[in-house]
Amino acid sequence: MKAQQKETFNYGFKRTVDIDFERAIERTKDALKTEGFGVLSEIRIDEKLKEKLGVDFRRYVILGACNPPLAYKTLQADINIGLLLPCNVVVYEADEENRSVVAAIDAKAMMSVVAQEGIEETANEVNEHLKKALEQL
Amino acid sequence: MKAQQKETFNYGFKRTVDIDFERAIERTKDALKTEGFGVLSEIRIDEKLKEKLGVDFRRYVILGACNPPLAYKTLQADINIGLLLPCNVVVYEADEENRSVVAAIDAKAMMSVVAQEGIEETANEVNEHLKKALEQL
Repeated sequence: MKAQQKETFNYGFKRTVDIDFERAIERTKDALKTEGFGVLSEIRIDEKLKEKLGVDFRRYVILGACNPPLAYKTLQADINIGLLLPCNVVVYEADEENRSVVAAIDAKAMMSVVAQEGIEETANEVNEHLKKALEQL
Repeated sequence: MKAQQKETFNYGFKRTVDIDFERAIERTKDALKTEGFGVLSEIRIDEKLKEKLGVDFRRYVILGACNPPLAYKTLQADINIGLLLPCNVVVYEADEENRSVVAAIDAKAMMSVVAQEGIEETANEVNEHLKKALEQL
């Protein structure tokens, strides 16, 4: 079994795991649930690209994860914040067979465009939960 | 009929329109379609908050809008960009009765966290289409 790779980039956190795509989605949803996130949307972007453009793309899902108490808090601070909700977590096929990449948005980086008091604190809280979810995979 | 208000804020564009909530959603979807965006997700955040927290919140929908050729282009430039897709457009009840607010993400502001060559140009293109969609309401 290969070592699991962890990586932080300028707008997210990601892990490469030794799990096939479909199983990685299930594991990710379970981990998000444990951290208080419900999955409010699920977009199979490869299927959409195939349908609309006829192109082949690696299997790729965008999950919209929402922690209701934190979402409520941010919406009360800024009514337009729904433009940045839910927090995305993506799962896609890695370059190597039977491996998958799971990446979560860096809520703090994303919310930095808001410049509203109190949002940063909540974004940090969201990030802690997203990181913990990724660690559970 | 009141004058329609247009406003730009640090991470989006919005309009207040003399249309009730449900009709505003339909009009927004039509306008997005005209500009080449499909709606890939639709989250009634007020219903989720009621269900999960038992709280009352103004009617509020988050639409996930996606322009397939532009999404494909950005995904080819940066495989993790799904964390910032689709582009959100929100519709919510205004403070005054029978008026609604429609707001679209400023894709350039959001994509500014990516710092990847070629993304900014696409983000500008997305913004032009989102602004045109809002103008059609």
